[in-house]
Amino acid sequence: MNAPLKAPRRLESYVLGQWTPGAKDGQTILDAGTGQPVATIDSSGIDFAEVLNYGRSVAGPALRKLSFHDRAGMLKALGLKLMEQKEEFYAESFRTGATRPDGWVDIEGGIGTMLTFASKGRRELPNTRVLTEGPVEGLSRDNSFSAQHILTPLQGVAIHINAYNFPIWGMLEKIAPTLLAGVPCIVKPASQTAYLTELMVKRIIETGILPEGALQLISGSVGDMLSHVEGQDVVTFTGSATTGRKLKTLPAIVNNSVRFNMEADSLNASILGADAVPGTPEFELFVKEVAREMTAKAGQKCTAIRRVIAPRALTEALIAALGERLAKTAVGLPDAEGTRMGALASYDQRDEVRARIKDLQADAEIVAGDPDDVRLTSGDAQSGAFMNPVLLYCDKPFAAGAVHEVEAFGPVSTVMPYDSLEEAVELANKGKGSLAASVFTNDAHVAEEVVLGIAPYHGRVLIGNRVSAKTSTGHGSPLAGLVHGGPGRAGGGEEMGGIRGVTHYMQRTAVQGAPNMLSAVTGRWVEGADGHQGTHPFRKSLAELRIGDQLVTASRVVTKEDVEHFAEFTGDTFYAHMDSAAAKANPFFDDRVAHGYLIASFAAGLFVEPNPGPVLANYGVDNLRFLTPVYFGDSLQVRLTCKEINPRANADHGEVRWDCQVTNQKGEVVAQYDVLTMVAKEWPAKG
Amino acid sequence: MNAPLKAPRRLESYVLGQWTPGAKDGQTILDAGTGQPVATIDSSGIDFAEVLNYGRSVAGPALRKLSFHDRAGMLKALGLKLMEQKEEFYAESFRTGATRPDGWVDIEGGIGTMLTFASKGRRELPNTRVLTEGPVEGLSRDNSFSAQHILTPLQGVAIHINAYNFPIWGMLEKIAPTLLAGVPCIVKPASQTAYLTELMVKRIIETGILPEGALQLISGSVGDMLSHVEGQDVVTFTGSATTGRKLKTLPAIVNNSVRFNMEADSLNASILGADAVPGTPEFELFVKEVAREMTAKAGQKCTAIRRVIAPRALTEALIAALGERLAKTAVGLPDAEGTRMGALASYDQRDEVRARIKDLQADAEIVAGDPDDVRLTSGDAQSGAFMNPVLLYCDKPFAAGAVHEVEAFGPVSTVMPYDSLEEAVELANKGKGSLAASVFTNDAHVAEEVVLGIAPYHGRVLIGNRVSAKTSTGHGSPLAGLVHGGPGRAGGGEEMGGIRGVTHYMQRTAVQGAPNMLSAVTGRWVEGADGHQGTHPFRKSLAELRIGDQLVTASRVVTKEDVEHFAEFTGDTFYAHMDSAAAKANPFFDDRVAHGYLIASFAAGLFVEPNPGPVLANYGVDNLRFLTPVYFGDSLQVRLTCKEINPRANADHGEVRWDCQVTNQKGEVVAQYDVLTMVAKEWPAKG
Repeated sequence: MNAPLKAPRRLESYVLGQWTPGAKDGQTILDAGTGQPVATIDSSGIDFAEVLNYGRSVAGPALRKLSFHDRAGMLKALGLKLMEQKEEFYAESFRTGATRPDGWVDIEGGIGTMLTFASKGRRELPNTRVLTEGPVEGLSRDNSFSAQHILTPLQGVAIHINAYNFPIWGMLEKIAPTLLAGVPCIVKPASQTAYLTELMVKRIIETGILPEGALQLISGSVGDMLSHVEGQDVVTFTGSATTGRKLKTLPAIVNNSVRFNMEADSLNASILGADAVPGTPEFELFVKEVAREMTAKAGQKCTAIRRVIAPRALTEALIAALGERLAKTAVGLPDAEGTRMGALASYDQRDEVRARIKDLQADAEIVAGDPDDVRLTSGDAQSGAFMNPVLLYCDKPFAAGAVHEVEAFGPVSTVMPYDSLEEAVELANKGKGSLAASVFTNDAHVAEEVVLGIAPYHGRVLIGNRVSAKTSTGHGSPLAGLVHGGPGRAGGGEEMGGIRGVTHYMQRTAVQGAPNMLSAVTGRWVEGADGHQGTHPFRKSLAELRIGDQLVTASRVVTKEDVEHFAEFTGDTFYAHMDSAAAKANPFFDDRVAHGYLIASFAAGLFVEPNPGPVLANYGVDNLRFLTPVYFGDSLQVRLTCKEINPRANADHGEVRWDCQVTNQKGEVVAQYDVLTMVAKEWPAKG
Repeated sequence: MNAPLKAPRRLESYVLGQWTPGAKDGQTILDAGTGQPVATIDSSGIDFAEVLNYGRSVAGPALRKLSFHDRAGMLKALGLKLMEQKEEFYAESFRTGATRPDGWVDIEGGIGTMLTFASKGRRELPNTRVLTEGPVEGLSRDNSFSAQHILTPLQGVAIHINAYNFPIWGMLEKIAPTLLAGVPCIVKPASQTAYLTELMVKRIIETGILPEGALQLISGSVGDMLSHVEGQDVVTFTGSATTGRKLKTLPAIVNNSVRFNMEADSLNASILGADAVPGTPEFELFVKEVAREMTAKAGQKCTAIRRVIAPRALTEALIAALGERLAKTAVGLPDAEGTRMGALASYDQRDEVRARIKDLQADAEIVAGDPDDVRLTSGDAQSGAFMNPVLLYCDKPFAAGAVHEVEAFGPVSTVMPYDSLEEAVELANKGKGSLAASVFTNDAHVAEEVVLGIAPYHGRVLIGNRVSAKTSTGHGSPLAGLVHGGPGRAGGGEEMGGIRGVTHYMQRTAVQGAPNMLSAVTGRWVEGADGHQGTHPFRKSLAELRIGDQLVTASRVVTKEDVEHFAEFTGDTFYAHMDSAAAKANPFFDDRVAHGYLIASFAAGLFVEPNPGPVLANYGVDNLRFLTPVYFGDSLQVRLTCKEINPRANADHGEVRWDCQVTNQKGEVVAQYDVLTMVAKEWPAKG
């Protein structure tokens, strides 16, 4: 069942455009399940300052030349390629102690995260190189001076220092948003499982998809690299708080205000609602989830449930149910059939977990499992870093210290009772900041009170109940679209969260100036900037259309007959359109008014070009506001201006956003909105 | 002209609910212009750990009970009250060396910033206690599991450590977003000008507007306060980078991952475009702006222009024009008529500036002004900390170090030449991260190249030209709506930026669960959550209306006649509605389709309640997307659900956002959007 014996592989770093072995033989890494040597690792002899410079000077400019959609396309191509090769990664993953389901989280979860970023990049970002954020801020009444926040890629490199537990996901969840932002990466995996990261980087580099230098790998120590970081660089760290604090306070990081993002392990809690008594779906879900979190990846997850907070009356039943379930957990070789939990990453790690359990015993007693008595369904307790799940119970959690302070980074969790919902909240928050928490309840009030009570201390909170039982992604799973990180003990960092995670590698800048200037900088038309009139802009394909192309229409008077006719036709006989006395009694109107939808419909009638042309469809409207009532006899005129152009990479068309302003005969703005259209790249269409 | 001689005032701290003098006499602070003693300052004897606990336990819960609109209202009331008392602040401000225009920036600029946050809080935030951020993320196909990011106030305190140059603005620009977020503040002004801050805090506390403990003041040292900070606290610092780095690496801050926001002074650049030759409006604007930035607040502004980057061919003319303008700057007592520039904050500060000018002279020569020869129009160079503006010129800025490293925090700037736009960008970025930069040009291409080139190194960039000449707020003015802060040397911080600045004091949490649970937590209806049918929801006032109240309408068939009629009536005869062959040739349609605006109009006809009632007006539509084409014979049905309710504080009505989903006979979603209405608080209306 084990991988066949072979000589340990000498891991290499990928730096300065080549695979580079360390100058020395280096440390030997053992297979977690069998104790056989897997690889040796060493990075001595590398010029780390040069590695930084290489990323900054070679890859940075190349990445910044690409648009967000180009980079998203690159990530997609890469993700699909890696997914094809997944079995090779699984084979290597077993050696880390991970079962196939553990490997799935790491390998397919990691590649999936990259693909999600690719998809979000295409769908949620424009096809440009500079991002605008938030609305244009008008700073003058006459529209001669405005501001717009923009985001541009940092011109340094991102150094990603990862933990041993997810050698693939840990890398991909960080490099995907970094590369999407346009910033080169240097990855430093934890030595214990670096062979799996190195294998994947080999496969990534082989694809030739990334620009040279966009991804460098340090197999082994980063040496003096962190003494050479500068203000445009970013350092991220996942691992122990002690190491993280040391790195965070290094002089080059502090003196250059280097962005430092830290994810430390935390004492994540899961709370059982008082409604979730034995026999309810929520009780069962809770038992399953706690057991799963304790045993998945042998409990070596920074989001794993360490503290199980339950109503005092339910703790006995809960411990019984958990104990029974945990006792059935087959522990053995990760690749053996029937194994439910594999090995810890190393003997050292197992010793460490045993020592921490001793610390916990100051406050708590063991109620299930024995840290020292290893029972296996396959493998050998002398060769592999195995242990069985251990459940503790702390009867007086408010008097306790260790259970809220000490993390046993393995299949270990502590049950503690609460007597009121306030107490449950307080106990969860005694973790002093965690990555994730969960509450299992079918009572919306309990969910509300717990979530709002613990939210300030948590980066993510999951509510589990019968409705989401089948579709829930679970307590411990960070998702590409959701922020991952937590305050306080958890390190104060924030990763992913969809496009938020991309902006961590960009600089936010407020740009102020005359609208024409802002348009030039942002590539978007800004109110107050020049409009270019001439050919009807709906007759221009993307090849011809330019930001600022503008149509000013003829006017159309809105009559009483129009309004009454529209009311009858659509059925919208709201009194403000139909009844003068009632309209006058309304605080917003002086008399009967035209329908908002009538205004928008007449506006379209004024600006549309009826004949077949490059404008293919109106797919939506954004931020429509009716600003001035339209009374009978008022006349409408439309100014339509090309505001934003987004050609799609893999289609013959793209999105065009039009600023649409409808004014009345006094020049007052009656309605303001964005019209969204699909426009052909060429017209007549080729081919 | 001077304030009359009086005994120095003994400054007090406002802590634990009372004004508290220090245990010792403390340090004496002198009037910057006259050298007379103004105040003594000391904070010894205060239990700083208790001050933190007081804020956290007394004020935190009180602030968190208020909604965003409540807190915004509080800031508005406070701002208006302080504005009434502004003359008292101006009188005290003169003693800091500030002229009346300098004081305006500090006093009215500070109060104005608070009022802007009040206004943004009302307009841009909901009237709730928890913020949602971004869209609901669907995590399952059947809508049984979704996620929403929320922001909740941190449960600690914010300690704001301020610089001496803006004793009022520095406090207000920080406490306004903090209080709006719902977090109590402890303010520690720089001793040199703490008497002005203390005066304003006295006036603030007197109003009784803030909940007790929401604002505490430390006049003097913060003692061991920063050893007691915890993970829910925030520390902000404005001042020298050296001090900032010390604070940032204090054990309690590092170990508890305390958010630390730093604004350090920076070597801000202003670039003259090559088009802006003498005689152009931009050249004149540039000369004015550089001179203004050098002399306003005697150059003691963290955003002041320190490096003047000009085309080599224009430097001679520029230096001549600047020299002439600077020579005319009347330096004297801040409150004397005709004074254009007052005193530096202290003798020490003047000595410091003179020493830094010596450092700069390693790279640059003085071309205007003499640091040692003080020429005054009033006052006495022996009593007041006066000096005249000094302009330097550095001919070889790429070979120079000091001009990009050394900050003379006074009326001092260095001109340096560039030979290409790339060089100008590179020189600006040699500041290694700045708070603000500017470029003066009337050439949009120059603006684009410079702004995008320097944006990654800057928190704010201003483009100056003739169009914005009269309305521009200038290079050096941070605005409440724009981010203030810069990367690298500038400290890596970010303040203000409108509501962004409020979120710095809140925790972002991803909440996952079944839609009903998310609705309960966020107070917003979420797709997939239950809808409550019964009375038409348009017949319910805010007193009766609940999140999830829902109307499912009858169906309506869309006929060919409807489409042709609508086309003729509105004038929207786009071919996809009118011409079957042309529609079929369109990549999105199989045949002639109904107008999007017809769909929205018919939808309104289906859901509107025609009679006078609590729904007063439809003021807009958000995120309208047409998702499935509607062909002749398709029938439409609308599901309208109450999604969000925002009662206005000072009106008889509030905003209600409705989720509007239009489906066809196959259940496919045809259109999805939010309908925005104004709804009366009671119906029939009272009174």
